Amino acid sequence: MNSADVTLAHRLADAAANAIRPYFRSEFGLETKADLSPVTLADRAAEAAMRAIVEKEHPTDGIIGEEYGSSRADASRIWVFDPIDGTTSFIAGRPIFGTLIALMQDGWPVMGIIDQPITKERWLGVVGKPTTFNGKTVTSRACASLDQILLATSSPHYFNDENAAKFQNLVPHVNAKRAIYGGDCYNYGLVASGHVDLVVESGLKVHDFAALVPIVEGAGGRMCDWRGEPLDANSEGDVIACGDPARVQEIVDILSG
Amino acid sequence: MNSADVTLAHRLADAAANAIRPYFRSEFGLETKADLSPVTLADRAAEAAMRAIVEKEHPTDGIIGEEYGSSRADASRIWVFDPIDGTTSFIAGRPIFGTLIALMQDGWPVMGIIDQPITKERWLGVVGKPTTFNGKTVTSRACASLDQILLATSSPHYFNDENAAKFQNLVPHVNAKRAIYGGDCYNYGLVASGHVDLVVESGLKVHDFAALVPIVEGAGGRMCDWRGEPLDANSEGDVIACGDPARVQEIVDILSG
Repeated sequence: MNSADVTLAHRLADAAANAIRPYFRSEFGLETKADLSPVTLADRAAEAAMRAIVEKEHPTDGIIGEEYGSSRADASRIWVFDPIDGTTSFIAGRPIFGTLIALMQDGWPVMGIIDQPITKERWLGVVGKPTTFNGKTVTSRACASLDQILLATSSPHYFNDENAAKFQNLVPHVNAKRAIYGGDCYNYGLVASGHVDLVVESGLKVHDFAALVPIVEGAGGRMCDWRGEPLDANSEGDVIACGDPARVQEIVDILSG
Repeated sequence: MNSADVTLAHRLADAAANAIRPYFRSEFGLETKADLSPVTLADRAAEAAMRAIVEKEHPTDGIIGEEYGSSRADASRIWVFDPIDGTTSFIAGRPIFGTLIALMQDGWPVMGIIDQPITKERWLGVVGKPTTFNGKTVTSRACASLDQILLATSSPHYFNDENAAKFQNLVPHVNAKRAIYGGDCYNYGLVASGHVDLVVESGLKVHDFAALVPIVEGAGGRMCDWRGEPLDANSEGDVIACGDPARVQEIVDILSG
């Protein structure tokens, strides 16, 4: 991982954004034919654009993509792509979806980008460096106690029954009136920028969370699974992103019941 | 209501936007002191700016504002302001809140604006005229059956127990996997633009819904209460906004149980 990788990641994000923008709020109608929906077309076009660049310039790097699967999954360096994280927001015309790009080294995410192509907002996290938002350093914020936490999660419907019960255990401990729903990857950017304190989600795939880890941690926050363990390629995808690391253990204790 | 009122409404929206923008994602921290929070400061500055214009230029018009209450509430023409609808989105740094401006004539909303000051998106509805989005005509979309509906609502926590049960009756009839949460007034703009099919909410105040009615109806949709009755200044604030009027009766039947 070096500065050339960062430059490449920005180019990948630019390529994805250019592929996605023409389909946003386009007039193709609802997703009645899966293969022809604007979100599917945008998803595929964006991932294809990113894969083509990596294949040409780094042919020995691995790729894991949400749309087109894995190539060279045993490589030590793997690019991980989720071209449109937050497909429902995309379909509904809300500019709070994002393109996720991660570079994993030996199974650990070492660089991540969240790119919002409509509002042109981009978070970049690089292991060992401060996270940036549109080029400026951002930091997550301190949170003195659980009851001050502003919590975000994509949907109350995205938990299985067991995890929904655990999540509902947490809600009374935080400022539930200020809980926000919807947002997907965008919420993790807002944690890095110090506007949201906590995201709790479950069932994420590696392409959903790999990019988020360096972004949240490089801003001073902490990202881990529901047991407090760090996230790698083999994690089950029950994730916590907390702006203030001092609050993580209490959250883990509540979620673990 | 004439074209000068439309021009005035745009100026009011511009004034509110200029008042709000400096506070968005500002570094005042969480709302620990209610009087000093960025959202409260932005709310008040925006409403004060709008009221000052109406007081100066139309001193006999009434005003109802979310922050500063009513003036001349018995006037036949009343301006209705919600400077920041979606305060939680504002606080969390999400650009999907909005400023709501309505003109009511004898208790009926005849003009409405939804303005998103960060993304610079503005819906305008005028009774008897096509709704516009950033100056271009928009139309809501047809929806052939309930199971194709993309449903939006601000939060699962915004219903009282009785209405929460009614809302949960509705969820299995629509495309629940595609339900979106969060968004407040922005969701109604997305109905007008044909990206979202249905918003169901309850407990709204007149400043929350008055501006939305001409926008949704001028785009070809229908806005009413949960019994199917039209919305006026005395409505209780249980509202439905549906892009396809042909689906409204089925929705009313389900919500009324």
